[in-house]
Amino acid sequence: MSKTVKIVRFHKTGPAEVLQFDELPLPQPGPGEVRLQVKALGLNRAEIMFRNGQYLETPVTPAKNGYEAAGIIDSVGSSVDSSWIGKTVSTVPGTFKLNDHGVYGEVAIVPVQGIAEYPSALSYEQGASIWMQYLTAYGALIWLGQIAKGDFVVITAASSSVGIAAIEMAKVEGAISIAVTRTASKKPALLEAGADHVIVTDDEDLIERVHEITSGKGARIVFDPIGGKILESLATLAAPKGIIFEYGALAPEPTPYPLFTALAKSLTIRAYTLFEVTPDPVFPKAKQYIFDHLASGAFKPLIDRTFRFAELIEAHRYMESNAQIGKIVVIL
Amino acid sequence: MSKTVKIVRFHKTGPAEVLQFDELPLPQPGPGEVRLQVKALGLNRAEIMFRNGQYLETPVTPAKNGYEAAGIIDSVGSSVDSSWIGKTVSTVPGTFKLNDHGVYGEVAIVPVQGIAEYPSALSYEQGASIWMQYLTAYGALIWLGQIAKGDFVVITAASSSVGIAAIEMAKVEGAISIAVTRTASKKPALLEAGADHVIVTDDEDLIERVHEITSGKGARIVFDPIGGKILESLATLAAPKGIIFEYGALAPEPTPYPLFTALAKSLTIRAYTLFEVTPDPVFPKAKQYIFDHLASGAFKPLIDRTFRFAELIEAHRYMESNAQIGKIVVIL
Repeated sequence: MSKTVKIVRFHKTGPAEVLQFDELPLPQPGPGEVRLQVKALGLNRAEIMFRNGQYLETPVTPAKNGYEAAGIIDSVGSSVDSSWIGKTVSTVPGTFKLNDHGVYGEVAIVPVQGIAEYPSALSYEQGASIWMQYLTAYGALIWLGQIAKGDFVVITAASSSVGIAAIEMAKVEGAISIAVTRTASKKPALLEAGADHVIVTDDEDLIERVHEITSGKGARIVFDPIGGKILESLATLAAPKGIIFEYGALAPEPTPYPLFTALAKSLTIRAYTLFEVTPDPVFPKAKQYIFDHLASGAFKPLIDRTFRFAELIEAHRYMESNAQIGKIVVIL
Repeated sequence: MSKTVKIVRFHKTGPAEVLQFDELPLPQPGPGEVRLQVKALGLNRAEIMFRNGQYLETPVTPAKNGYEAAGIIDSVGSSVDSSWIGKTVSTVPGTFKLNDHGVYGEVAIVPVQGIAEYPSALSYEQGASIWMQYLTAYGALIWLGQIAKGDFVVITAASSSVGIAAIEMAKVEGAISIAVTRTASKKPALLEAGADHVIVTDDEDLIERVHEITSGKGARIVFDPIGGKILESLATLAAPKGIIFEYGALAPEPTPYPLFTALAKSLTIRAYTLFEVTPDPVFPKAKQYIFDHLASGAFKPLIDRTFRFAELIEAHRYMESNAQIGKIVVIL
């Protein structure tokens, strides 16, 4: 009898409990692929949306899930350099489809282009908490937004792993980060992560506070995964010729486009995902930038909480609670 | 008794008939200003919105109006080179405020930075039909959009003077223009103006036709002054990484932002007005480009209809009817 492994799949879309631990034959890497013994999984909001059938990619059931795993390569397919075997790597979102290569499982099969080494000082948990957050922030802030010393950067949903990464990246570039969060309880952690300013929207007026902080200049860059009605406020607080990056759709309601405000200030609203970064020639440069700043300690993947593999459903529920600050990780 | 002249002003916002022919003392140019004996006025949609109190600039009554006049300089203020006197010029929108220097009148006072010579082969009517349309198109298509040979460019409200200018500019650059108009009656004139394709939205499905014309690639550039519910269709017909320029707000309804479509295709929605062009270092280059293509005959300002000065109110009403193809001009 051949060996079997647990692979997480869902057979219908829906709440966290649709995730199943299917016992499947040990999968073999095909041409151009590698197999990873998974040690840690970093969870992403995208995976909840995919599970719900609300993501850019539509699940084909039974569907795999999961963008980010850290682990050790134990097998490679044809045309892959066998020196990869034994290396510790993590998987890079945007280089594969969730339907094809979702990594939730004891092992994961991914294309060799979809793995990257990370500094050896990092734990598996940290290794599974790199690429989604830093590549997403890099593409918007560095590549497209070209943030520079003194730029005001408004970061909404700042407690998310991408938000924290953006705070760290703004600091490295000498920009001034304005982290936006709903509740005062998250303020100390955001300041500790390096935020120059934190606005607590339950207690403070977002537009007024940005006006104060920027001495009326407004924010040159806004980095927002929410959309919906907040976009109008973000346009109001943006500087003339400002760029608002919309990189998600967390708000349940439709998103009005603030045409008059945008015309008056020549605003750019740029819808953006990291799927633009990975196929672009900028990708190797982005990876090197992130590797270097992880190695120097300027970037420190912030782990909010870890769960055991058997608790993956609970980990999904926890992400949906929005209680976290930083990354939620599942360890195997 | 000193000489008086007729200056058009409105003492309250509202429909065309609020425009009054006020008899005022002959105005003198101040420092840095010139006085123009007005020979022709080119009308713009912005002036109707200003008259209605719905423009980016709020009228201070009694308010002047009008961006574009062609005529002869008959007096200059201090610190202005007197060799300007006797020259035929036209006024450049975006270099002054309507409240300060609106040009509807027998004479107009404008800052010397706000005038430009045009090729002598052009009539006064054509001279008053240059800068708004070609500078607006230049800023979006050439400067920011960098249209290139083979690019598909969708131009909505194509029969407007700016729309026709965009069609001509696309042709000069080797791009493929797709002119969008409501009624079939305007199709022949748009083809004659140089449109590569015309889509008549009363009879044809906009998205389907763009899909056909572009062989499924979509339009890299969309140039739209309408906003409102059409934005969703424009996002659907745009190519991945396409740019939608919103340069007006003709639609009365709110404008929904198509977040999911934009995320799936990494779309940029760029609110844009020519007020960005005039203070920018690109402005002299833009003026030269336009002058050269007017001189070569590649750009031919298309005059739809002329009115006499006393018929200015009627000319405003005619613009509001949307019957025109090209520029509406008032001659003095």
